Amino acid sequence: MVKAVEWVNGKVRLLDQSKLPHEVSFIDCEDFVMVADAIRSLKIRGAPAIGIASAMGLALAAQQTEVKGVDELKGRLEEVARVFLSTRPTAVNIQWAMQRMLRVVEDGKDLSVDDLKQRLIEEAKAILEEDIEVNRAIGIWGASFIRDGDTVLTHCNAGSLATGGYGTATAPILVAKEQGKNVRVIATETRPVLQGARLTTWELMQAGVDVTLITDNSAGAVMRRGLVDLCIVGTDRTVLNGDVANKIGTYTLAVLARENGIPFYVAAPLSSIDPTIESGELIPIEERPAEEVTTIRGVRIAPEGVKVLNMAFDVTPARYITAIITEKGAFRPRDIRKLFLEGLNISEVRL
Amino acid sequence: MVKAVEWVNGKVRLLDQSKLPHEVSFIDCEDFVMVADAIRSLKIRGAPAIGIASAMGLALAAQQTEVKGVDELKGRLEEVARVFLSTRPTAVNIQWAMQRMLRVVEDGKDLSVDDLKQRLIEEAKAILEEDIEVNRAIGIWGASFIRDGDTVLTHCNAGSLATGGYGTATAPILVAKEQGKNVRVIATETRPVLQGARLTTWELMQAGVDVTLITDNSAGAVMRRGLVDLCIVGTDRTVLNGDVANKIGTYTLAVLARENGIPFYVAAPLSSIDPTIESGELIPIEERPAEEVTTIRGVRIAPEGVKVLNMAFDVTPARYITAIITEKGAFRPRDIRKLFLEGLNISEVRL
Repeated sequence: MVKAVEWVNGKVRLLDQSKLPHEVSFIDCEDFVMVADAIRSLKIRGAPAIGIASAMGLALAAQQTEVKGVDELKGRLEEVARVFLSTRPTAVNIQWAMQRMLRVVEDGKDLSVDDLKQRLIEEAKAILEEDIEVNRAIGIWGASFIRDGDTVLTHCNAGSLATGGYGTATAPILVAKEQGKNVRVIATETRPVLQGARLTTWELMQAGVDVTLITDNSAGAVMRRGLVDLCIVGTDRTVLNGDVANKIGTYTLAVLARENGIPFYVAAPLSSIDPTIESGELIPIEERPAEEVTTIRGVRIAPEGVKVLNMAFDVTPARYITAIITEKGAFRPRDIRKLFLEGLNISEVRL
Repeated sequence: MVKAVEWVNGKVRLLDQSKLPHEVSFIDCEDFVMVADAIRSLKIRGAPAIGIASAMGLALAAQQTEVKGVDELKGRLEEVARVFLSTRPTAVNIQWAMQRMLRVVEDGKDLSVDDLKQRLIEEAKAILEEDIEVNRAIGIWGASFIRDGDTVLTHCNAGSLATGGYGTATAPILVAKEQGKNVRVIATETRPVLQGARLTTWELMQAGVDVTLITDNSAGAVMRRGLVDLCIVGTDRTVLNGDVANKIGTYTLAVLARENGIPFYVAAPLSSIDPTIESGELIPIEERPAEEVTTIRGVRIAPEGVKVLNMAFDVTPARYITAIITEKGAFRPRDIRKLFLEGLNISEVRL
């Protein structure tokens, strides 16, 4: 399985995703600035992956900081954290990772500087390991929905490259394969940024999974032809009423799946569920630059001056979603309210 | 309005669509071989447009043929017709245009060679004029469904560039504009070949129509946001039960439109209705090369060796289609049977 980020010989090794699928090259970050630059320039992307990379970047900064005491180290690392937070200002995972790493410093005031530096490496590695464990657990729950011989349609890249390993939407596929099931994948190319064509196909080919690329336009026709047994997608944010914000085009796939009687699953770590937002209508949708649509890898494909509407995400209403697959089990979207407001245990709503 | 093909000063002038939207250049074809080459190399495309171009190409060949009598001219033009038929072997419009032009020769056996050559020019021009008239009539019927201030979503290019003028799906938009209605268009980019991004946006901008480009993935989100009042698409072939074969992605749009309560119209010259095929399930769907998906204007966007499924068309079942708009009026898809098998008049089923 592909590794997007690793701690190797005291350095942070990143797979340079901006060069995929044309070239597989790794960046061995010698200092935290290299890690921050890689995040900023999208050499590494995917919410969990950049959280892990920023944590490792902070641990790396700690190793290279010459300080007299823990207080001085704390001050320096707070500065480093600010640099990481500025790389992708809306990335919740970086905020979460920085808070967790700085808490280690806070809790380690009585340690020696050297011991604290070691603790920070351990914490960053733990963040990576925990992410892999969460995803593998999603995979185990999700694999129960995949029968031998099934074809899974997925969208965008919610794969190993976006996480510490296994991915979220791809985890059930990889676990089903580990279980000896014959499983095939149809990957939508995912315009405008083509994460499906560039990344998902590549990482599944690396993992030995039988994957077929289609244009986003073909999803309806392949479903209607009976070529898809189930859909699994990731999510950027899932809210209290079970609505799901994910890459643009997800709503379209969910509508097509329901129309064709195909189950539609959303793989979501519990951390991606935001019960403070009542409904999908309230999730702000980022509009991105026209150039993402009018040019592809630098080549212009539309007239100069054409108006463009480029929404990065869309919202899929809960009624189209068969189940949300988390690391603690799969449940119906409407049960999010029961879990987060009524205090039910997941075992009480699990499918 | 943009002209894809014209007879100018004894030559056939084609707009070179392979260079659009980056460069607007015309090809003045000096002989029929240039016309055939332009059709073969997709410098001109669109079923009606290549029918017209091939008719004009045959008229051009007639002018440049030194023959002693009408019989010799007939033999030569039959050879020329074979050349045009070989350029796009499945293009029904070329077959139809060649038959019509050769019938002029057949019917003109008593004319002088010079008079017959003149008749062929007139016939080719008539084919162009009739196409424009048919499209304008589609436009007049279709414009009745467009209210002042409406936004129309269209797919691929069923526009002026694909026809003699007005286009089919674009005709209602252009006529509504002529009628003084405020009408806006959302054009889907239409992967893999990007006819929407390259051609539809360009020709509508030329015609002064307010057009916004979106990725195919965005169609669901823009419909759900209430940004689309109606959809109008073209068709390659419409069959007896009202099912419609059109560019891949049309089925998806029709499903999304119904889900969002948006009328979905198909603009179809009566000549594109094929009552000899009972149902859309029986329409053969062309699969095209993987390279159309894995490269965009020569730039590779997917891993080497990835499997690809690239269907050129899909079939939209009649139940998703609000009405078929023809040059004789608009009617429900289920009424095709009444028109073609039960002998009803269009005025009896017209909406």
